[in-house]
Amino acid sequence: MNDDLTHDRFLGDRLHVWQPRAGYRAGVDPVLLAASVNAKTGQSVLELGCGVGVASLCLGRRVPGLRLTGLELQPGYADLARRNAAENDVPFDVVQGDLAQMPAALRQQSFDHVIANPPYFLQAENTGSDDDGRDTALRGETPLAQWVKAGMRRLKPRGMLCVIQRVERLPELLSLVAEGAGAIEVLPVSGRAGRAPGLILLRAIKGARTPFRLHPPLIMHDGAQHPGDFESYTTAVSAVLREGAALPWPDA
Amino acid sequence: MNDDLTHDRFLGDRLHVWQPRAGYRAGVDPVLLAASVNAKTGQSVLELGCGVGVASLCLGRRVPGLRLTGLELQPGYADLARRNAAENDVPFDVVQGDLAQMPAALRQQSFDHVIANPPYFLQAENTGSDDDGRDTALRGETPLAQWVKAGMRRLKPRGMLCVIQRVERLPELLSLVAEGAGAIEVLPVSGRAGRAPGLILLRAIKGARTPFRLHPPLIMHDGAQHPGDFESYTTAVSAVLREGAALPWPDA
Repeated sequence: MNDDLTHDRFLGDRLHVWQPRAGYRAGVDPVLLAASVNAKTGQSVLELGCGVGVASLCLGRRVPGLRLTGLELQPGYADLARRNAAENDVPFDVVQGDLAQMPAALRQQSFDHVIANPPYFLQAENTGSDDDGRDTALRGETPLAQWVKAGMRRLKPRGMLCVIQRVERLPELLSLVAEGAGAIEVLPVSGRAGRAPGLILLRAIKGARTPFRLHPPLIMHDGAQHPGDFESYTTAVSAVLREGAALPWPDA
Repeated sequence: MNDDLTHDRFLGDRLHVWQPRAGYRAGVDPVLLAASVNAKTGQSVLELGCGVGVASLCLGRRVPGLRLTGLELQPGYADLARRNAAENDVPFDVVQGDLAQMPAALRQQSFDHVIANPPYFLQAENTGSDDDGRDTALRGETPLAQWVKAGMRRLKPRGMLCVIQRVERLPELLSLVAEGAGAIEVLPVSGRAGRAPGLILLRAIKGARTPFRLHPPLIMHDGAQHPGDFESYTTAVSAVLREGAALPWPDA
């Protein structure tokens, strides 16, 4: 079975993750998500659609003593998440189930933080992939509305939602989040200075009424173009990706 | 009466505008709005809540041969808009009326462009002003939803909406605009590089389905802080404010 898997390093050499060679592959996105969660030791965190566990395990590596829970629809990914948690020695309770029909064990709990990296493409858009697991992770069979609603329900009052998503879906995401949360902050993520952001990180607090804030973009790479195979991450991003640092949100 | 007015220069020395000394005072915002409208000679433009006419007159100064119409609730501002149009020799048809009860003369028309600089504050927020006209212009008695709905109704199919607004109201604005338009683009406006944007410019096309785009922020001032009374506008912004240039939207 391991022939179908790769064993990849994250956070420099701090985390090693098994993931399907041909399936959905975790890149920098779940790492940025984890770095945006300002969870404190002793708090509880639920990740919706945790895949092989990269976001939760990055967060667990940075903040000790969290109670981490993941929900994953696909049994194969859930199994890998459990294996990755055990091998990295990060306590992580992975529940296999559908967020649209929240498993009873989770319906009875509420969390200080809910985090998610929902699929970036609508099911109607054909990715051209012939891998079913990758398709589900990329395209999603669950509408974004159900991700947000399920997340909101599982949050404690004043709990924080943290999501990473394609910028194209920001209007939809904002309108969903605004139904139950305030203090919404959006951090656009741009490849380089002056380029249009392709992703956004969003944080919001359940039940808060503080106005919306838009931050200056997080810039991933220095310079105007990619200098061959020379790593060009900006200082803040390199600290996140290579050293497991928190992402410094403005005014945070 | 002129004692209660000031006569202010816009676009370098290209436009002279009478406005109330103590009332709502047009600043750079309507100039940025006008500079974001890509209207072509021969097209029609409706400005909702035109005040003393700064946005429409800036646009008319830049693009010759437009059919410019303004709707203004407050008779005193509407009169000043007509006077400003005449003195600057820009054809501008100003209708006094309420956008929430669209005057019959406008209900029978549709436009290639609708532009608006809706009030930035909700009526419930007390501005501390004791000037009624300024209060109406700043705080608004008309919900943002009515501005957007009235604007959408007056647009031709594929007509373009262009709005400037406080960043705090972006979620509300996006959700309203997305009901009837697509190809929504947002250009955040930041005082300086790395600072949070305070304003957003939004453009959208009625009936379009192109995905949402978020642009890198427009930076108003060079440098990290204001260098005394030395003008520090960035090159693009200076060209807009001092020479009446169009604002170069990314990929426009």
